[in-house]
Amino acid sequence: MDIIESVRFTEDGRGVRIIDQRLLPAQLVERELRSLADVRDAIRTLAVRGAPAIGIAGAMGLVAVLSPDESTDRDTLLARARCVATDIASTRPTAVNLAWALERVLGAGLSLDGDGVAMLAAMRREANAILQEDRAMCRRIGEHGLSLLHDGARVLTHCNAGALATGGIGTALAPIYLAKERGWTIEVFVDESRPLLQGSRLTAWELQRAGVPVTVLTDGMAASLMREHGVDLCIVGADRIAANGDVANKIGTYSLAITARYHEVPFVVAAPTSTMDPATASGNEIVIEQRAADEVRRIGGVSTAPPDVCAYNPAFDVTPAALVSAIVTDRGIHRPPYAFAESLGELADGVLR
Amino acid sequence: MDIIESVRFTEDGRGVRIIDQRLLPAQLVERELRSLADVRDAIRTLAVRGAPAIGIAGAMGLVAVLSPDESTDRDTLLARARCVATDIASTRPTAVNLAWALERVLGAGLSLDGDGVAMLAAMRREANAILQEDRAMCRRIGEHGLSLLHDGARVLTHCNAGALATGGIGTALAPIYLAKERGWTIEVFVDESRPLLQGSRLTAWELQRAGVPVTVLTDGMAASLMREHGVDLCIVGADRIAANGDVANKIGTYSLAITARYHEVPFVVAAPTSTMDPATASGNEIVIEQRAADEVRRIGGVSTAPPDVCAYNPAFDVTPAALVSAIVTDRGIHRPPYAFAESLGELADGVLR
Repeated sequence: MDIIESVRFTEDGRGVRIIDQRLLPAQLVERELRSLADVRDAIRTLAVRGAPAIGIAGAMGLVAVLSPDESTDRDTLLARARCVATDIASTRPTAVNLAWALERVLGAGLSLDGDGVAMLAAMRREANAILQEDRAMCRRIGEHGLSLLHDGARVLTHCNAGALATGGIGTALAPIYLAKERGWTIEVFVDESRPLLQGSRLTAWELQRAGVPVTVLTDGMAASLMREHGVDLCIVGADRIAANGDVANKIGTYSLAITARYHEVPFVVAAPTSTMDPATASGNEIVIEQRAADEVRRIGGVSTAPPDVCAYNPAFDVTPAALVSAIVTDRGIHRPPYAFAESLGELADGVLR
Repeated sequence: MDIIESVRFTEDGRGVRIIDQRLLPAQLVERELRSLADVRDAIRTLAVRGAPAIGIAGAMGLVAVLSPDESTDRDTLLARARCVATDIASTRPTAVNLAWALERVLGAGLSLDGDGVAMLAAMRREANAILQEDRAMCRRIGEHGLSLLHDGARVLTHCNAGALATGGIGTALAPIYLAKERGWTIEVFVDESRPLLQGSRLTAWELQRAGVPVTVLTDGMAASLMREHGVDLCIVGADRIAANGDVANKIGTYSLAITARYHEVPFVVAAPTSTMDPATASGNEIVIEQRAADEVRRIGGVSTAPPDVCAYNPAFDVTPAALVSAIVTDRGIHRPPYAFAESLGELADGVLR
């Protein structure tokens, strides 16, 4: 399959190359990030988006931003690294992968006794390792998730948890790509996912590009689709999963989960283990990012509401674990009741299935 | 209160004057409809919309279209009237008020023995009577619905069932306008109502114009709003209500009703008695109009999806009676179990309350 690469190092390893997702589906443009402003802007404005892709972009971005300083002494470089990492992490506070990836890269630098050049090389290797692990992780999620599908299945998804959101074949879309590899026909339906339309702009684009049949609907149509035409499975990604299984994901996910429950359609979350945050006991503790009112009042530069009207615009919502039929990770399929703890890291691949 | 008049006769009574709702909220433009093409286009393209307003526009439109022919003989005029009425009725098959209003105007002409001029005068009086009754009906819906509100209530609505959708102060919004008259503060939240954005474009505009505090959200945010901030009541209009209480209304209504039930928020439908269709046993019999894919793939001329991707675009959905807490009509408040029959017409005002 021809799957796009959403984030990678530039050839010199001193910049990050991303697909600018703000311009899709009209234009496929790649962009190089080298400065802190580049990295912050790309993450903040959703040029790069999706929890795993943000993590990779943040990790590579940290290395890119520090690259011009590699000849300074170790302590200065480390102090600067901490400051840059904090700054990058603050751009998307809900994305737990971002903080996690930045910690890993920082840790790789810290653990090395050499000079700035050696330290940065270690950090670069770590950022690349995160990308490679992410690719493998996507495939494992796909393999585990495949058991929930069958040839001819009708699947509804929300937002974009595909190749564009990760370094590999996606999370929620990974089982669909693997089903396609097997020659199965999976019919995918995707909510457009207002306000930023990641479903109609990104998921529709990448599935169509891969030859998967896809139909776009507006967010309010999912219930009608389930009732009138039937859906076999809902599958979505996650930005953060609390210890009790509550899931923070793109706004609209919670609504879809309620609708799926009402129609007795299984509602499945697919995410890497790194999305799990055992330190967060439940969804009530997750801080929800509020975004600008104009995202709701305008669409693609066109005003769709009185320009000064109030708007409600949370970036995410929290789906309570009670509505989640299963959580597919790279380690297996988790079923309720969920209780994710530190011990999760010790579970062998697939044992939770 | 300064409430706009969405549909009325031109001063000469030979045309229909409407607010072109396609241009709101950016521009407030009035348009005159005189030919059959004018009337059909205005209804089909949603320049005039909302079941009661469509009924009035259709009734007045029939008179306007026939006006140049008033000097022909009675039988020719009647034959033409039937043909024009059928043509107008076919533009929005789900709106039961349209067929109902056209029947009334036709009936007024048929019942008169005079010449074409006298016949058309009778039809014009009937169309005007429909408008006046609609105004009174809106007020009565408002008065009955007011008992479901309280000062400080937080109300969520979908699409536009306001002054723009009727000849008066609306259906779902009527109680809110009357609460405003009483000096109550009602905080209104409105789904933008994709694909055609009647919530953000029309409901937000007319409430803001009337000084009612209003906040716009995207359709997928309603569940988050209920969970995070609380909503006291959902109130929506209806395009058709079946004998068993199933409600056909703007796409997204069903999803909202499910979400309201999950959060134990009362879900109320407000509609004139003429919206009830006792001949339709249940929602399963209601034919749902499918609209053009580009309404989903584009927003205000801007492409928001791959241009050739499939799109699902039903204009309406059916909310089963089991999810409807109450139906407010001009005759009172109906509670489940619903069983609307022909006898409905004989009930005295308010007895169902």
